[in-house]
Amino acid sequence: MGSRAHAPADISCLLQRLQAVRQHSERLIEGLEPEDLCLQGMADASPAKWHLGHTTWFFETFLLEPHLPGHATPDRRWGHLFNSYYEAVGSRHPRPERGLLTRPAIGEVLAWRRRVDAGLETLLLELDRGPAEAAAPLLELVELGLQHEQQHQELLLMDLLDGFSRNPLEPAYGVEPPGAGAPDTAGGWRSHPGGLVEIGHAGAGFHFDNEAPRHRQWLEPFNLAETLVSNEAYAAFIADDGYRRPELWMSEGWAVVQERGWCAPRYWRGDWEFSLAGRRPRHPEAPVRHLSWFEADAFARWSGGRLPSEAEWELVVTEAAQPGGRPLPQAFGALWQWTASPYRPYPGFRPAPGAVGEYNGKFMSSQFVLRGSGFLTPADHARPTYRNFFGPHCRWMAAGVRLARDGATRPC
Amino acid sequence: MGSRAHAPADISCLLQRLQAVRQHSERLIEGLEPEDLCLQGMADASPAKWHLGHTTWFFETFLLEPHLPGHATPDRRWGHLFNSYYEAVGSRHPRPERGLLTRPAIGEVLAWRRRVDAGLETLLLELDRGPAEAAAPLLELVELGLQHEQQHQELLLMDLLDGFSRNPLEPAYGVEPPGAGAPDTAGGWRSHPGGLVEIGHAGAGFHFDNEAPRHRQWLEPFNLAETLVSNEAYAAFIADDGYRRPELWMSEGWAVVQERGWCAPRYWRGDWEFSLAGRRPRHPEAPVRHLSWFEADAFARWSGGRLPSEAEWELVVTEAAQPGGRPLPQAFGALWQWTASPYRPYPGFRPAPGAVGEYNGKFMSSQFVLRGSGFLTPADHARPTYRNFFGPHCRWMAAGVRLARDGATRPC
Amino acid sequence: MGSRAHAPADISCLLQRLQAVRQHSERLIEGLEPEDLCLQGMADASPAKWHLGHTTWFFETFLLEPHLPGHATPDRRWGHLFNSYYEAVGSRHPRPERGLLTRPAIGEVLAWRRRVDAGLETLLLELDRGPAEAAAPLLELVELGLQHEQQHQELLLMDLLDGFSRNPLEPAYGVEPPGAGAPDTAGGWRSHPGGLVEIGHAGAGFHFDNEAPRHRQWLEPFNLAETLVSNEAYAAFIADDGYRRPELWMSEGWAVVQERGWCAPRYWRGDWEFSLAGRRPRHPEAPVRHLSWFEADAFARWSGGRLPSEAEWELVVTEAAQPGGRPLPQAFGALWQWTASPYRPYPGFRPAPGAVGEYNGKFMSSQFVLRGSGFLTPADHARPTYRNFFGPHCRWMAAGVRLARDGATRPC
Amino acid sequence: MGSRAHAPADISCLLQRLQAVRQHSERLIEGLEPEDLCLQGMADASPAKWHLGHTTWFFETFLLEPHLPGHATPDRRWGHLFNSYYEAVGSRHPRPERGLLTRPAIGEVLAWRRRVDAGLETLLLELDRGPAEAAAPLLELVELGLQHEQQHQELLLMDLLDGFSRNPLEPAYGVEPPGAGAPDTAGGWRSHPGGLVEIGHAGAGFHFDNEAPRHRQWLEPFNLAETLVSNEAYAAFIADDGYRRPELWMSEGWAVVQERGWCAPRYWRGDWEFSLAGRRPRHPEAPVRHLSWFEADAFARWSGGRLPSEAEWELVVTEAAQPGGRPLPQAFGALWQWTASPYRPYPGFRPAPGAVGEYNGKFMSSQFVLRGSGFLTPADHARPTYRNFFGPHCRWMAAGVRLARDGATRPC
Repeated sequence: MGSRAHAPADISCLLQRLQAVRQHSERLIEGLEPEDLCLQGMADASPAKWHLGHTTWFFETFLLEPHLPGHATPDRRWGHLFNSYYEAVGSRHPRPERGLLTRPAIGEVLAWRRRVDAGLETLLLELDRGPAEAAAPLLELVELGLQHEQQHQELLLMDLLDGFSRNPLEPAYGVEPPGAGAPDTAGGWRSHPGGLVEIGHAGAGFHFDNEAPRHRQWLEPFNLAETLVSNEAYAAFIADDGYRRPELWMSEGWAVVQERGWCAPRYWRGDWEFSLAGRRPRHPEAPVRHLSWFEADAFARWSGGRLPSEAEWELVVTEAAQPGGRPLPQAFGALWQWTASPYRPYPGFRPAPGAVGEYNGKFMSSQFVLRGSGFLTPADHARPTYRNFFGPHCRWMAAGVRLARDGATRPC
Repeated sequence: MGSRAHAPADISCLLQRLQAVRQHSERLIEGLEPEDLCLQGMADASPAKWHLGHTTWFFETFLLEPHLPGHATPDRRWGHLFNSYYEAVGSRHPRPERGLLTRPAIGEVLAWRRRVDAGLETLLLELDRGPAEAAAPLLELVELGLQHEQQHQELLLMDLLDGFSRNPLEPAYGVEPPGAGAPDTAGGWRSHPGGLVEIGHAGAGFHFDNEAPRHRQWLEPFNLAETLVSNEAYAAFIADDGYRRPELWMSEGWAVVQERGWCAPRYWRGDWEFSLAGRRPRHPEAPVRHLSWFEADAFARWSGGRLPSEAEWELVVTEAAQPGGRPLPQAFGALWQWTASPYRPYPGFRPAPGAVGEYNGKFMSSQFVLRGSGFLTPADHARPTYRNFFGPHCRWMAAGVRLARDGATRPC
Repeated sequence: MGSRAHAPADISCLLQRLQAVRQHSERLIEGLEPEDLCLQGMADASPAKWHLGHTTWFFETFLLEPHLPGHATPDRRWGHLFNSYYEAVGSRHPRPERGLLTRPAIGEVLAWRRRVDAGLETLLLELDRGPAEAAAPLLELVELGLQHEQQHQELLLMDLLDGFSRNPLEPAYGVEPPGAGAPDTAGGWRSHPGGLVEIGHAGAGFHFDNEAPRHRQWLEPFNLAETLVSNEAYAAFIADDGYRRPELWMSEGWAVVQERGWCAPRYWRGDWEFSLAGRRPRHPEAPVRHLSWFEADAFARWSGGRLPSEAEWELVVTEAAQPGGRPLPQAFGALWQWTASPYRPYPGFRPAPGAVGEYNGKFMSSQFVLRGSGFLTPADHARPTYRNFFGPHCRWMAAGVRLARDGATRPC
Repeated sequence: MGSRAHAPADISCLLQRLQAVRQHSERLIEGLEPEDLCLQGMADASPAKWHLGHTTWFFETFLLEPHLPGHATPDRRWGHLFNSYYEAVGSRHPRPERGLLTRPAIGEVLAWRRRVDAGLETLLLELDRGPAEAAAPLLELVELGLQHEQQHQELLLMDLLDGFSRNPLEPAYGVEPPGAGAPDTAGGWRSHPGGLVEIGHAGAGFHFDNEAPRHRQWLEPFNLAETLVSNEAYAAFIADDGYRRPELWMSEGWAVVQERGWCAPRYWRGDWEFSLAGRRPRHPEAPVRHLSWFEADAFARWSGGRLPSEAEWELVVTEAAQPGGRPLPQAFGALWQWTASPYRPYPGFRPAPGAVGEYNGKFMSSQFVLRGSGFLTPADHARPTYRNFFGPHCRWMAAGVRLARDGATRPC
């Protein structure tokens, strides 16, 4: 899915990275009670144990089963349980019923992880002894599996927060990672003249298929906010009847507001906020989070601005990262940032071949793109070209808002 | 709720019984994985941990809080979590979301049980030192709490079976209790002349409010089957297109058959059957189980018989238990037996006073009565006057069918 | 379905009655706009045109097609459209979509009625010339068809009221029939000693299969209210928080109250009431109407009384109709009266043979019996043994409440 | 909504056009039965009578009430009934219940139309006597009302087709307009080099707010099919298991296919097709119609092509319409053509001021753009810049597919 051929030396690197990523997943469940491992708060979310199993299934299915003779899966039926959405690979347990899978028990899942880790190590060592051309596609798949596991590390935490939020006891998972609510007081706008620009991934590093191909796009002049919208600013929107004025909302979003009785971001509770650290006071200057696209869009309209397109966001962040550039605050590691761009293929997009082609391409309708990364995202899992996506009503992920506005018209 | 005044000696009996019943509940979860404790397969069912908590809440709420000064509940909010349906006592966590309560963890719940058990012992010893008249109503409440806990012991196992049945791995809980599938080959009919009879509970022993008052009823002559309908007999109904002939069904039942695609009892899987012992072959002569009232009623119509009224069932079982009587086979300890009787109050029925009046009385619409007891029912939790009840579409409890038919007309 | 053999002279009577009943149906739509004829306010209701077609289909299907050679239906496909629930007769258009059947147009339906009426006259004249034994079962079917059409005359008006109630313009159908809101100020109770009594239909006149067989039943002493509960009395229940006190309600009914936000009878609108005569002031002394069973039951509990069993109601009304008896006020022609009795078969019940056996018998679960008749019921369509039935949540029919209470215990 | 100032002579033109458009709406219902006028087959559709009322309400609300002193609406409550989705104007009858509005009867609605037509004529004549600057915005509103009514003329027919399709009698509305199924055998591709292009409306004529502003966009080289996809080609997709291969579908579309059991275009019935002319044979060469976006997208993927972006479509059609250009076959008057473009605002988009700003702007999420026009669209209601939009699962409108594919890379 985009990573290019590895030199032999890469393999030991990859092995180290494999161990680090796999262990990190397991560290995430350390503070939990056994019952928590099966918690599924809603159909969109999955239990922690399922994430640990699914990421293991991914490696076993796409690497060990086809390429490591002699590897045996502990139970043929587990494939059905831990397949997420790969139609080409076989049948699947219904997503809303993942929380009912109390078996295999966590001990069995962790033993399976051990076995798959060992298999991957064996496979990598074998590849190390063989020709580089043969190794390359498999190494790419290993890398894809690691990126995949990192995505699920974030999902595991998002899903746990959702599940815990439904318990009146308001359980705390632990301390929040740094960056979660860090205010940035820079403020102001960064202006860009637009023009014929290029966006999308090119070159050697790993990227998902949906980030390519790099392509040209015309942009009018625009401004992008230096920082994310704060709790305080969002509270002003609420105080100004933001959730009661239909003219601020997409018609579809207004229907959701009415139906679900939305009147604040998902985890606001009075002056407090529910978080992985439990209920705690809300910092006015911290970026507002757990907003749907509908809320982000309505807020932007109310503020007189708009959401940036994904090209605008990528352009500014990429240029800011050039030597001599001034990095855009809160671009990464704070909150995912909603864009005005529906999630669609780039011109010339081709899904990765085989079953992993289902990874991204089939979700390109009725969703919006988010850019950047969040405080729950693994630190090395971020790129200026990264395209995250969710439906416009979703708000259980750590999403916030960065505003944009049209720029001065350039002389033609 | 019906038990009458206890002599002083009763108290030590009750203490022993208290310990036995409470320990039995905890023994039920011994073979389970921690994740299993939070399993809730459907809205009608509850997780095992919730049952352990709810029965404890019942004792704490109705006995310790009002009557044991100094008793403190571990967490005020648990009352909301573990109240089942007592509107008079306060708010409740939504029933379909009990499986999301991963906290309090099992350890906390077991510690709570310890504390409540200790409180109950203290209370009983105090009552022992006081006047009998003052003690009587509280002893009745303790007895009610024990009966209540026994009901939940059966529910815990029914609910677990439901939850496990949704896992493609078909987990086994353990060996089934004896009596589960014991065939009885007696066959034949027991005839009764009917007449002006009395049913309902009278006298000293414990009974639920819905079993009283004892009252007169007129019955025409009838016959009651000696044994329960077998798997084999039920298979003949299926083979004769029983599930495809609307004329055999109540209109409401036929709609359920169509909508849910019913074509066999709930846990039949080909020639096998899912059970607490996992998937296993079905014994043709064993009584068919896990039928809804709709299926029981359709089968009865197909067979040329009918379901007995609850009065017919009670009359035969009571008379059979008289000295010199011949006990009715499979009346108790095999399967609950659907009757033709809607669950309604007996003439002159008065719910128990106070919040425990919600125990039975408010469910007297749109349900049917089942009589006897099942293989999951605690052995000493059965009476000829016992009235169990479920909606006509329910089939996750261990319910079977005993047929009846009209008798010869008596000379006037 | 219960009527017995007719003497030859009956036939001309029947012919006259046929014409009268059939014409009455058509008179019911005289004041309507063409669009009104297709109005279906909810899945439980049917459009007026559908009622006119369905009653015609009934005669054609059960009488003309099997017994009048040469009779041709205008369109084979209409059978599918106008079959209500007779599985034995063939497929059916989904009930909730009857309002979508804008064709056949009303003109075609009326022409069909003409043709079927003519066919029935021909058939009756032929039967008149043949042997009485051969005629009898067909004459019974004609009578059943007429009773059936009379039931639909009431349904047509109930359904229209429901449909009109959903239009903010609050259209009026016309003047209400007398008896609709007539207050009766008799008050007081009529006591009955109970004992071994008989209820159910016996003898020669027409009755539905569900009214038979006549059978014995034991009743304890009881009292039955002389009159129906008034709007004023019901308003006192509301003022006393009747809709906000769960202890007054069946658990199932309380859930409906919460879910649908019930806070008054269905057609109350402030101090007014919606009716077939449009919106108009509510008369405090008129009997309260359009209550569900849940509301009737809750009101009775609040008042300290209870609903009567159907046997109690029938017994009092039958005895009151004996020579020298004092008729029970508002027994007929005012409102249907909810009873405490679930709708179940009488001992020894046998459904009518053939497809018309689906008329009543298959609805004997999850419904309650109503007795008497209402102001929308055709005047000659009432009997002390008549058993009407609806689900406990239904309230679009003209149903009210007559209270009962336990009587003094008789000396044994 | 975009049309610019009118010269005085315009007014008599506009008057003529007003009469023509308004009369055309009424001609559309000429062949219908009265019951048909209230037919609402699904929540997305509206009854014919409602369309006639709503378009009248639009003129009355936005023109007569604010600008024609002395104009009185027949009934204040009708505003609630006939408001479609204008939150700023007041409350609305729930859309899924429009079919229940049997009143006002058609006669009343037609009389209202008369009165509003007369009011509009009076207003226009007054404007004619006043200053042009004052008249201009009102004339624009009149033009908007006419365009709006033309949209509803198409909706009326689409909705009627949907409603009739649910009647097993398969009623015919009448002869289909020419162009409905006209095959075009041109075939082949039209290539375009792309580049920095402009799309969107500019200049004097009427256009909706969503067609502006005209703006630059970069396009890569592409090819656009000369003709629409035919029934025959689509049948090949079905024969190749197109509806059973998840890899061809968006994930969201695949879920719809499974859930609704889609296996062909909406109105295909065996080798026939349901249409406003009733059931009739399907012409293999005619363009396939009544496809959802999901089906169009899956077909395109299967064929090796893709859907065009709206910019690609507009560019080719605009250039083809230039002097010397060769018009693109079936661009207008055959079927609406799905594009790959989510319906989003153009850069710099501003909704029209006031309540009519709700016309288009609030629907810009979760929908896709269709271009061209269809055989049900009024002939003069088409522009190369016109943006129609529907959700990706909708298929009751006359939508078809024109393919695109990437072009040869241009030398840089």
